[in-house]
Formats: sequence, C-alpha cells, structure tokens
Amino acid sequence: MRPTLTEARDLDSRDTLAAFKAHFALPDGMLYLDGNSLGAQPRAARDALDATRDQWRDALVGGWNQGWFDAPERLGDLLAPLIGARAGEVLVSDSITLNLFKLLGYITECQGRARPVILSEGGNFPADGYIAEGFCRSAGFEHRLLPEGAPLETHLDTQVAVVVLSQVNYRTGQLRDMADTTRRIHAQGAEVIWDLAHSAGALAVDLQGSGARYAVGCTYKYLNGGPGAPGFLYVRGECQRAAWQPLSGWHGHTQPFAFEADYAPAAGMTRFRTGTHSALAYAPLEASLTLWQEVDIAALRAKSLALADLFRTCLTDLFEIHGIEDITPPPAQRGSQVGLIQREHGYAIVQALIARGVIGDYREPGLMRFGFTPLYLSHVDVWHAAEQFREVVESAEYRNPRFQTRTEVT
Amino acid sequence: MRPTLTEARDLDSRDTLAAFKAHFALPDGMLYLDGNSLGAQPRAARDALDATRDQWRDALVGGWNQGWFDAPERLGDLLAPLIGARAGEVLVSDSITLNLFKLLGYITECQGRARPVILSEGGNFPADGYIAEGFCRSAGFEHRLLPEGAPLETHLDTQVAVVVLSQVNYRTGQLRDMADTTRRIHAQGAEVIWDLAHSAGALAVDLQGSGARYAVGCTYKYLNGGPGAPGFLYVRGECQRAAWQPLSGWHGHTQPFAFEADYAPAAGMTRFRTGTHSALAYAPLEASLTLWQEVDIAALRAKSLALADLFRTCLTDLFEIHGIEDITPPPAQRGSQVGLIQREHGYAIVQALIARGVIGDYREPGLMRFGFTPLYLSHVDVWHAAEQFREVVESAEYRNPRFQTRTEVT
Repeated sequence: MRPTLTEARDLDSRDTLAAFKAHFALPDGMLYLDGNSLGAQPRAARDALDATRDQWRDALVGGWNQGWFDAPERLGDLLAPLIGARAGEVLVSDSITLNLFKLLGYITECQGRARPVILSEGGNFPADGYIAEGFCRSAGFEHRLLPEGAPLETHLDTQVAVVVLSQVNYRTGQLRDMADTTRRIHAQGAEVIWDLAHSAGALAVDLQGSGARYAVGCTYKYLNGGPGAPGFLYVRGECQRAAWQPLSGWHGHTQPFAFEADYAPAAGMTRFRTGTHSALAYAPLEASLTLWQEVDIAALRAKSLALADLFRTCLTDLFEIHGIEDITPPPAQRGSQVGLIQREHGYAIVQALIARGVIGDYREPGLMRFGFTPLYLSHVDVWHAAEQFREVVESAEYRNPRFQTRTEVT
Repeated sequence: MRPTLTEARDLDSRDTLAAFKAHFALPDGMLYLDGNSLGAQPRAARDALDATRDQWRDALVGGWNQGWFDAPERLGDLLAPLIGARAGEVLVSDSITLNLFKLLGYITECQGRARPVILSEGGNFPADGYIAEGFCRSAGFEHRLLPEGAPLETHLDTQVAVVVLSQVNYRTGQLRDMADTTRRIHAQGAEVIWDLAHSAGALAVDLQGSGARYAVGCTYKYLNGGPGAPGFLYVRGECQRAAWQPLSGWHGHTQPFAFEADYAPAAGMTRFRTGTHSALAYAPLEASLTLWQEVDIAALRAKSLALADLFRTCLTDLFEIHGIEDITPPPAQRGSQVGLIQREHGYAIVQALIARGVIGDYREPGLMRFGFTPLYLSHVDVWHAAEQFREVVESAEYRNPRFQTRTEVT
C-alpha cells in the first residue's frame, strides 16, 4: 500500500528532529533532495558570515587575533564528536583533494617509504584517484586502481602502502563496514585513509571504535558549511608523529610568527595546515557545526533510513512499469541516499523534477540520485517529492525536449 | 621643513585617485597603514558577498552553474591586466603556498627533472622556502637557501632548476628588477617563479614585458579580496604545456563531470585547479577586481611613492634623536611601504599607535612597517598618522607597560 499524506503527517508529529528544520533558511516551493551535493543554509551560518564580513571591515587585520587564526583547530574539535573522534584529532583545512595529498605524504614518510603502491578504488568518485595519481607521479610511487566490486584482498599485497576508500559510495550509496575493512587492511601491513564525504553528518561514523587511523572529508554536503566550505582530516592520536606532510605551509610551522628560515612542523594536527585560509569560508561552517552539537546522531540515522524508505515505498509500483531499477542498498549497508536507474530517461526525469522544484541530481549512466537530509526534510516533504516524481513519470512530461539539454552541476 | 596640514590638503585636492576612497568601507577613527597585511573592504565586495550568501540559500547546488564553477578562470582574466599578463595566463586558486608547490612540480616535469636543486631566498618571508622544502623532500629534490644579500650568481649553478624570488621584500620593501633578474636566471638555464604578494596592486607589475614565465601571488593585501582570499598563479602562454602539476584535483581534469577513472589535465590554466573551492571566498574578490579595472596603475604608483615620502618627511627630524633608522629604499627600488627600525622600542611604539587607531605592524627585530594603499588613504590621513607617531615618540607614551605585551598578528 502506498503511504498516504496523513501517514506522513503522523510520522512528522512523532519526529524528535522536527524542530531543526526551523534552523535552516530554505527557499519557498523547493523540495531539496540534493543535500548530498550542497547542504542547505543554517540561519546561524548566515548570521556568522555577516558577522565575519563586518569583522573584516571593522577589525581589519586585527580579526586574525579574534578567532580567525585558530579556526582550523577549533572547528576540528567541534567536528570530532560527529565522527567518533577525540579533540585534537581533527583539523578543518583545505579540501579533500589536498588533505589526501598531505596524508599520503605523511603516511608514506611514517612507513619509511617501505612499500611502493597506493591503491584507490575504481567506480567511486574519481577525484580521490586523481590526487593519488598526482601524488604517485610526484613522489615516486605507483598508483593502482581496485576494480569496482573486486574483493580487497585480490589487490592487497605486500607492495601496498596505503589504500584510499570511501565509507559510502557516491553513486550507489553503498556503505562499507569500516571496522572490518580497516582490520583487514591493517592485517596486511597497509594503512587506509577513509573518505567520509558521504558519511559525515549522514550517519554515525565511529572512527575511534572502528580502529581507523586516517580519514578525510568535506563539510559542504551533509554538514551544511556552505558552497566549497573547507575540508577536514583526521589522524588518530597514537599516529600523530614527528613526520612531515609535503604541503608544508607557514601556518603548519611550529612557530609561524618567528619567521625562521627552516620549516619545522608544529605538534599535533596543526602540522597539516598550509597557507592562509579564508576567514569568510570558515565562519558559516563554525555556526553549522555548533548547531550540529545538538543533534542525536542515532535519531538522525533512523530518520534518514525512514525518509529514504518512505520515498521508495511511495514509488515502488512505478518501477517495473517504467523501467526503473532501484539500486538503493538495504538499510544496514546504505548511506543517506536513494539511487534509481532509468537508462533512457533518467536525465530528463531529473530535469523535469528540477523544473517542478524537486531537486535531485543525475549521474551517468541513467542514475537518478536523491539525498535525504533529516535536519531539514520532513516526511511530508518526501511524500510530496514522491508525488511529483510520480506525476513526471506517469504523464511522460520528461519527454519534453527542454528537459534533454545537458548542463553540468558539481 | 615639515609638511603642513594645508599642504597635505592641497595634495589631496589634486589627487586623481581621490574618488576611490568612497568605494571602501573604512572604520571610523582608524588610520590604516596595514593594507599590506590585509586590505580594506570595498563596498562592492560586501554587496557581492551578500549576494553569494543569498545565492547559496536560494539556488543551492544550482549556484555552481551560476558563476561559481568558472570563478577561478574568470577572476584570473580580471586580474591579468593588473600584473601585465594576458587573458588565459592567470588562475585564481588556493594559496601562494599551494600554487608554489604546483608550479615547482610542473616546471621540474617540463624540465624532465634534469636539474636537482630548488633555490629560495633567505631573509624574505620564509613561507616560500617552507613549501620549497616540502616539495623537495616529497619529490626528491634538494632545497638550497640564497643567503640574504648574496649575489644571485654565487648560488646559481647548473644544478639549479628553479629559483623562487619575491618581487618586493616583505620586511624591507626592497623591489627587485624583474626583467634583469629574470634574464640572468634564464641565462643560466634555470626558471624563476616570482612571488607578487607585495607588488600586485602596489605598483606596475609587467610580467609580459619583463620576460617572466611563472608567478604566484595573493589577493588579500593590496587587492582587497578579503581575509585569506584565494591566491593566484601565472604561467606565460608559451609555457603552458601538457605537463602535470602534482596537486591533480578533479576541477583540473579535462572533463571533470565525465568521472573518468584516470586523471587527464585540462588545457591551459585550468589544470592548476585542485578540489572544490569556496564560492564565498571568491565573491568579494571578484567585486574588488572589478573595481580595480578602473585604476590607473601609473597614478597609483606615483601616489604610493608620494604618500610614503610624505610620511617620512613629516618625521625625519625625529629619527636621529630617538634612535630610529629609516630603511625605506629609494623610490625606484621600493614597494609600497615604509620601514623604520627602533630596536629597543619598536614593538611598543607600534602598540601605542594601534591604541590610538593608527594601524601599522611590527616584525622582529625592531622593524615598524607601514603600508601605503593609495586607493583608500589620503595625504591628510598620512599627515595625521605621522602626527600620531610624533606624539607617541615625543611623549614616550610607548613606555607604558601595557604596550609591552606581545600578541601575534599575521
């Protein structure tokens, strides 16, 4: 039976996270299922950005002594509890790409360059592989790609120094078992860097409990930090040593204001800082992470699964008739997204939905991707989004030529 | 004879750049001589930031198709004419530190790694040396430091692949002859990367005419892009080849949205892009660079020199009596700053001035640094700042213990 609007309203009335929606500035008339690309704007983030804008005007260079300079460490400590890390283990800095480069250099230096291969996974967001290739080419390592679906052990030999893996696959939403995978990689004498882009803020990440030593992630998706907000990196306390990371900038120096001729890395996570960062980019993220301190992650996870399943249940009857394949993994193996493949019309269906104010996104070939962000989506929102999907498909509205034109969105 | 306030007013009445001051939001009661650390806020930059903040709220992920994605190239083309470059030769991206790393990798790959040494200069802002060290350690090169004041040729042998030099020294304000120095380095078969941090927006940089092939710079000082605004890099058109830069991020891929497994660098400057950038950090910079299109750089340079000399002429009579050494270079060899050394009391004098709303900065040992930004400083401003300096020194106000406490500012 298809769920009714009344049933969706009833679920909202029992939703312990419902009050969070009022903390977000959401455009009227939009049903936004793309928070896995760019998160919505917390009202407090807007205020924090305005305050930093005014601080630039009024305090000018003095702003660096009023919280700007220490933001990478301070925001790292705010982020830590959301991903099962401890204070002093997370730094907010640069982007996933650059943080991967730093960690690859740092880890291989810690290993004394004893193993020559960096392994990244095929079939996932390729950016992690691109920077692994660049690192290997520059630093004299060999890059190998783990084919999609191949068992890890077939490619995990004694040559492999570091494996780069995503906890949640950006296309399929498949969730890896972090504890088990980490154990298997460590058992082969290799290290793993976890990419949390599609898991931080989407589910209960447990870096500490899973035995993970290294991770990177971004804050502009589920964590609502703003477009292109800074990334983060995690190094388990026991793994913070005196090694260098290769992007040795002056903010990562042990005494940045002594202006010494030689580089000497700072203690702890500070060594992973590079050059001067944008104070304007950190301000909204700090406000969002502050809001996130109030979130019960177990409740978030339960609502995420419920919203995704509500969406699918509303549409199940359409799938076979309209050639739609539901590739969404079962709950225990899922991130916070639904994946529906319609090879011929997937692109046009997403465009027709966008024209109706239902924002999902599209990835070749044929994949319609819908992200579920429990802090600002209600069950009623999801019910209405599914209704719009039904109307687009049943009316064949997507066949209109204006929905065929290709445009690109990050 | 000390200049009078009437004389300063007269200079302002003939100042062809005077109208620019109204385009900046300046705090009341402050005389800001630290635009060489962080530039003041253009009113248009404030408006542009607000517009991008609202675009995040209203367009959400759609913002990437509304100008955010192409900002690195678009802002590069806006910046190009300010530094004597052509369209397609400048990219706004990351920071000086990261851009130096990219260029060191790119240039040494273009050279086929034929020479093993990277040379950076001692006595200048050490961050350029720090990242050169990190690059060398990671990529297998040797880093050497050119001692301050040593003739370039004494360290420029056939082992040297790349030299990193600042056009203007951050401490002394000394301006290098870019054309002559570039010619001498090229004559030895080496390349030079110019750091324009203290020259872009301060004087007429002529990358094209000087024969320079590579440069980096920042936009948060003289170019008023905001705290930690993105840096830039320049590669002369003839030197844009198929080589990789090591920080190979997905935005630098030839087809970032094809999600291909292997990295293939984009044509032109786009290959120097890395990961997803902060749209909020680019917005105010774009507005500022748009304002800069109206600036007559020759008039800017003339006013810069005049302001610095007005400040010094107002104070000359104090120097010998109070043990102050004026290290400001002669006009043809000067950036846009004045350097005064008082070894015993320099720090406290700067603190006492800050307490009076006259913002300069201090660098060990004993150096009081005052930057002159012709777009938002008048001759009358500078005259008043000099009067405040006189009062602080003549009254020995700086001896108050509250001006001895050390705090750090970038």
